[in-house]
Amino acid sequence: MAVLCTQFVNAETINVADHGILPGQDVSLEVNQLIESVKGQSDITLHFPKGQYEFYPEKAVEMYRAVTNHDNSLKRIAFPLIGFKNITIDGGGSMFMFHGRISPIVVDNTEGVTLKNFSIDWERSFHDELPVVESNKKESYIVVEVDPVKYPHSISGGKMFSEKYNWQDKMGSNIVFDPETRAPIYNTKDYSVNFKSHTASLAGKNRIKIAAKFKASPPPVGSVLISYGTHPTSRLCPAIHTASSKDIKIEQVTVYNAGGMALIAERCENIHLDGMTVSSNDERLVATRADATHFLGCKGEIRVENSLFQHMLDDAINVHGAYVKINEYLGDNRFLCEISHFQQTGLIFAEPGDKVALLSRKTILPFFETSVTQAEIINENLVVVTVAETPKNLPEGPLSIENLTWNPDLVFKNNTIRENRARGMLITTKGSVLVEDNTISPQMHGILIEGDNNKWYESGAVENVVIRNNTFENPGFEGSENYPLYAAPLLTSEQHFGEGRYHRNIEFTGNTIKSFNGHLAYACSVDGLKIEDNTIEFSTDYPKIEDYPSIDLDYCENVTIRNNKSVGFDRELYIEQASDTSNVKITKNPGFKALEERTPALSVVTK
Amino acid sequence: MAVLCTQFVNAETINVADHGILPGQDVSLEVNQLIESVKGQSDITLHFPKGQYEFYPEKAVEMYRAVTNHDNSLKRIAFPLIGFKNITIDGGGSMFMFHGRISPIVVDNTEGVTLKNFSIDWERSFHDELPVVESNKKESYIVVEVDPVKYPHSISGGKMFSEKYNWQDKMGSNIVFDPETRAPIYNTKDYSVNFKSHTASLAGKNRIKIAAKFKASPPPVGSVLISYGTHPTSRLCPAIHTASSKDIKIEQVTVYNAGGMALIAERCENIHLDGMTVSSNDERLVATRADATHFLGCKGEIRVENSLFQHMLDDAINVHGAYVKINEYLGDNRFLCEISHFQQTGLIFAEPGDKVALLSRKTILPFFETSVTQAEIINENLVVVTVAETPKNLPEGPLSIENLTWNPDLVFKNNTIRENRARGMLITTKGSVLVEDNTISPQMHGILIEGDNNKWYESGAVENVVIRNNTFENPGFEGSENYPLYAAPLLTSEQHFGEGRYHRNIEFTGNTIKSFNGHLAYACSVDGLKIEDNTIEFSTDYPKIEDYPSIDLDYCENVTIRNNKSVGFDRELYIEQASDTSNVKITKNPGFKALEERTPALSVVTK
Repeated sequence: MAVLCTQFVNAETINVADHGILPGQDVSLEVNQLIESVKGQSDITLHFPKGQYEFYPEKAVEMYRAVTNHDNSLKRIAFPLIGFKNITIDGGGSMFMFHGRISPIVVDNTEGVTLKNFSIDWERSFHDELPVVESNKKESYIVVEVDPVKYPHSISGGKMFSEKYNWQDKMGSNIVFDPETRAPIYNTKDYSVNFKSHTASLAGKNRIKIAAKFKASPPPVGSVLISYGTHPTSRLCPAIHTASSKDIKIEQVTVYNAGGMALIAERCENIHLDGMTVSSNDERLVATRADATHFLGCKGEIRVENSLFQHMLDDAINVHGAYVKINEYLGDNRFLCEISHFQQTGLIFAEPGDKVALLSRKTILPFFETSVTQAEIINENLVVVTVAETPKNLPEGPLSIENLTWNPDLVFKNNTIRENRARGMLITTKGSVLVEDNTISPQMHGILIEGDNNKWYESGAVENVVIRNNTFENPGFEGSENYPLYAAPLLTSEQHFGEGRYHRNIEFTGNTIKSFNGHLAYACSVDGLKIEDNTIEFSTDYPKIEDYPSIDLDYCENVTIRNNKSVGFDRELYIEQASDTSNVKITKNPGFKALEERTPALSVVTK
Repeated sequence: MAVLCTQFVNAETINVADHGILPGQDVSLEVNQLIESVKGQSDITLHFPKGQYEFYPEKAVEMYRAVTNHDNSLKRIAFPLIGFKNITIDGGGSMFMFHGRISPIVVDNTEGVTLKNFSIDWERSFHDELPVVESNKKESYIVVEVDPVKYPHSISGGKMFSEKYNWQDKMGSNIVFDPETRAPIYNTKDYSVNFKSHTASLAGKNRIKIAAKFKASPPPVGSVLISYGTHPTSRLCPAIHTASSKDIKIEQVTVYNAGGMALIAERCENIHLDGMTVSSNDERLVATRADATHFLGCKGEIRVENSLFQHMLDDAINVHGAYVKINEYLGDNRFLCEISHFQQTGLIFAEPGDKVALLSRKTILPFFETSVTQAEIINENLVVVTVAETPKNLPEGPLSIENLTWNPDLVFKNNTIRENRARGMLITTKGSVLVEDNTISPQMHGILIEGDNNKWYESGAVENVVIRNNTFENPGFEGSENYPLYAAPLLTSEQHFGEGRYHRNIEFTGNTIKSFNGHLAYACSVDGLKIEDNTIEFSTDYPKIEDYPSIDLDYCENVTIRNNKSVGFDRELYIEQASDTSNVKITKNPGFKALEERTPALSVVTK
C-alpha cells in the first residue's frame, strides 16, 4: 500500500498549455524545452488540450541518429523522449502537424512510454500524387495534373523535380494507384516510370508532360501516379522511432504521412499497439512512404491489436533480426563483424549477455551457439564481437552471426490490412507467433515468412507460428505469383540448402480466402507445416489467374494438408510437392487434387 | 621534488610496434584501439618507429563531427584524441598515409597535446592536377592530360568526373597553376572554367577535351588546371582538427594534402606551432584544398614560428571570431541566436562566464558588454544565450553578438608563406598581435585585417597589431588591387560606418616589399595606424601595375606615415586619403608624394 501511495504522489500530469504550448503555432522549441525540464522525473504525463499543433524544424533540437531501415542523419526532433522512465504523451485527440524534415517522436533509452490519442501528419506530404490526364503508349508519354499547392513541382533542364518544404527531390520511385479502389492498381508494375531518362515539359496550366520509358505501358488516364523520392534522402523522417527501450504502448495513434515508416522499433522489449491507424487522409490516396510498422531485433512481446493499416507504400508489419557478416576472426574469441545491409548501419547488433549463433552464409543454418561478452562498436559498419566460446575449428567459407536473444513473441489480432503496396505481414522471429482474427487484403503475399542472408539480411527462422481464423481478401492483387502464406527463405544461386530445414512449425488453419487466383500456400524448407480447415472462395474482383498451384511445397517435411475447402472455382485447385519434400499427409480437401511429385526447384537446391 | 618524481613515474612512452602497429599496412583499427586503451591515463607518449603507416577508413572509429569552416558529417577518425590530459603523438619522422575519407587527427576536450615528427599525406589527393596540352580560345575548349593513376577521371553523360577512393566528385572549383613558379598563374581568374555547363569528351589516350565557358580565356598550354570539388563534400577531411582543448603543440609536422585545411582550431587555448610545413609533395603542385591554418574563437596565445606554408589553395593563417545573429529577444535576458555562416554551424559560440558584446549588424560596432550565464544549444544553427544584463532599451534594427573572451594573442615569427592561392594572413582578434621576421609572397593581400558581418561573419576588430621586419615578395601576383597590408572591415551597401572606427592600433614598420605594383597599404576605419620605416623595391617578376595608390586611407584617424622609402620605381608612388580621414602625419617618405584629399569611398560610407 505504501508503494502504491508513493507512486501516486510522484505521478504528475502537466497541461502543456501552462507552458505556452498552444494550437495554431510552431511549438517545437517549447515542447523540446518542456521535455528537457522534466528530465530526471518519472511518471510524467504531458497532456495536450485538443487542437492542431504545428511543428517546424528550425527551432527543434537536433542529434545525429542512426535509424534502421531508414537514412541516418543529423535529425531535428519534436519529441525527444530519451532517458525517461514512465512518460506519457497524451494528445487528447489532437493533430500534430509537421513541416519539413523533422522526426516527430524519438524514444531511446526509456523504460515505460505511452503515446496516445493523437494524429501525426505533414502539411506537405513526402510523396506526390499526380493524376494522369493523358496517356500515349505509341509516343511513350503521359500528361499529369500537378496540384500547385499540395504537390508543387518544377521543371529544370528538361527534368521534373518535386518541390518540398526547403528542398527539392529528384523524381524516383513510383507506383500507380487506382482512385476507385484507393489501392495500387492491378499490375502496377507494368506502369512503372523510368525517371532516370525522362523528359519533362509544361503541357498547359498545372500540367506536365512526362516522356519516358514505361515498364510495359504508360499508366492509364484516370489513374494516379505516386512518386516517392530517391535514396538516400527519401527515408529521413519516420513518424515514430523507438530504440533501446522497454514497455512501449501506442494507443489510438494515427499516422497519415511520414518520410519513412509510421513506426520503426529496434532493440526494444515489449511493444503494445492498440488502436493504431496508418492511413491516408481524406485528401490523399497514400499514407506513409514505407512500412506501417517494422521491428528489428526486439524481444519480449510485440502485441498489435484493433489496428488499421492501409494506403502505405510498404508492408503493414515486418518483424525480424539481422544477419551480420563475420569479416575476420581476430583470435581470443573476437570476431570483426560487419553490418550487412546499408540501411542497417549504426544498428546495435548485440550487447554483453546476448546469445548469438554462428552460421554458414551459404546455408543460413547455425552451427554453434554462444554468448556475447563484449561488443565494441568501431563505426556504423563494424563491431568487434567477443564471445564466450568459439568452435575449435571454424568451418571454411563465409560466416555470419545472428542474435538469438532478441527474437520477440508476436500477437497480431483483430487488425485490418488493405490497399497498401507490398505484403501484409513479414514474420521472421524465433518467438511464438499468433496471427488471429485479422482481415488482410495484400497487394503481394499475405504473410511472408522469409529470412535471407543476401539481400535484406533479415534473420529469425521461425519456430512456432500460428495463423488462424483470418480473412484474406484478394491476396496478391499485384497480379503475379503471390500467396496468402508464403514461407521460404530467400536463397541466391550461390547459396544452397543445408542438412536441416530453415523454418519450423507453421500452422495455417481456419482462414477464409477470397481469391481470384486460387492460391493458398507456398512453403520451402519448412519442417512442420499444418494447413487445415481453410476455405478458399472464388472472387471476381480481379482477372482470374490459373498459372500456379494452390499449395506448393519445396524441401519441406512433416506437412499436413487437411480439411481445406475450395468454393466457387470452375476447376480443381491443385497441390504440388517437389520430390525433396517428405512426410506429407493430404486428406479431405474438397475441390483440391494432389499432383505427381515434381523435380525439386533447382534454382535453390544447388547443393 | 616529490611532485616532480610523481610526474616522472606517471609518464609513459609506448612503442606502438608493441601493439601490432607496423608500417606498410592499415593500422586504423590498431591505432584507435591503442588510444582507447590509454584513456584515463595522463602523460602518455605514443611513439612510432620511423616508417610509412597506412590509414584506411573502413576500420576507423566514427563520430558525427561539426568542424568549423568545413563540412560537418559522420567522420572516420585515425587519431581520436578526445578527453586526454598530456598526450603526445611522436611520429619519429614517419609518414602517415591516408586513403579516402578519413580525418587524421581530432583533438577535443583535451588538455596538453603534442603532435610531432610526422607527415600527413593522402595517396589520392583531394584535388586534381590536369596539365593543359591544347588551348583553343576561338572554339572555347582545352584538352587536358589525365594521369590515370594519380588523378583518374571518367566521362559520363558528356560530363567529366573525378574518381576518388570510393566516390566520384563533380568538377567544380578550379584554379590554374604555373609549373614554373609552382604557384597560381598570374591573373588566374581569367582562366577559370565554368564546369556547370561543360562538355567533356575523350581526346586520345588519357586526354580529355573540355568545352566550356572560360572567364576570359582558356588556360594556356603548359599551365596546369587544378580542380578541387564542390560544396558540401569538398571539405570533409581536415588534416588536424582541435576543438575545446588547451595547450596544443605541433612540432615538425608536415601536411602534404587534406580534404580541407591542414589545421583548423576552434575554442582552443594556447596553440604553439613550431616547424610546421604545409606543402605539396615532389609529385604535385598543390598541397591542401583550403587554408594551411585557421583559428576560430581561440584564446591564450597562438604562436607560429619557423614554419613553411606553400602551395595550399587558401590562406596561410586566419585568426578570427564569429558574429552570431540575434534572431529574437525572448525576455529574461535570453536571446535566441543563430550561427550566421553555413560553415560555422555546430560552433560552440559561448559558454557560461564568457564576456560578450551586443552590436549593431549595420555598423558592426558594439554598444553593450555583458557576460553569459547560460548557453543552451538548440541545434547546429540555434543557441539560446542568457546574459547577466540587457540594456534597458535594445536599439532598433538587426543585432548581433560576439564573444570577447575568446580572442587570442598571436605571435607569427620567422615563417615563410608563398606560392599559395589567396592571402598570406588574415588577422581579426582583439588580442596582441606580433608578425615579425617572416617572408610573405601572397597571391592576394599579404596581411588582411578585415572583419565582416555579412559574408564570412568573422569578428575580432583588432586593437593592437604590430607587423615589423617582414619581407613581402611580389605581393598580389593575382594581378589586381592587392596590398601587403589591407586593413578594412568589409561592409555591404546596406551597412555603414558608425561613430567610432572599427579597427585600432596597427603598426606596419620596417618591412621590405619587393613589388611590381608599388602597393604598400590600404586602410579603412582604423584609429591609430603607423606606417614607418618600410622599403618598397621595384620588381620585374610580374607585369607592372600603376593603377592604384601606394598608400590609401578611408575613414581613418591618427595615422603616421614616416620614413618609408621607394626604390627602383620609374615614378613617384602616391599617398591618398579621403576627406573623412583625420589627423594624418606624412613625413620623410622619399619616392612618395601625397595627393589632394579625395571624396570618401561612397560605397562604404552610406550612413
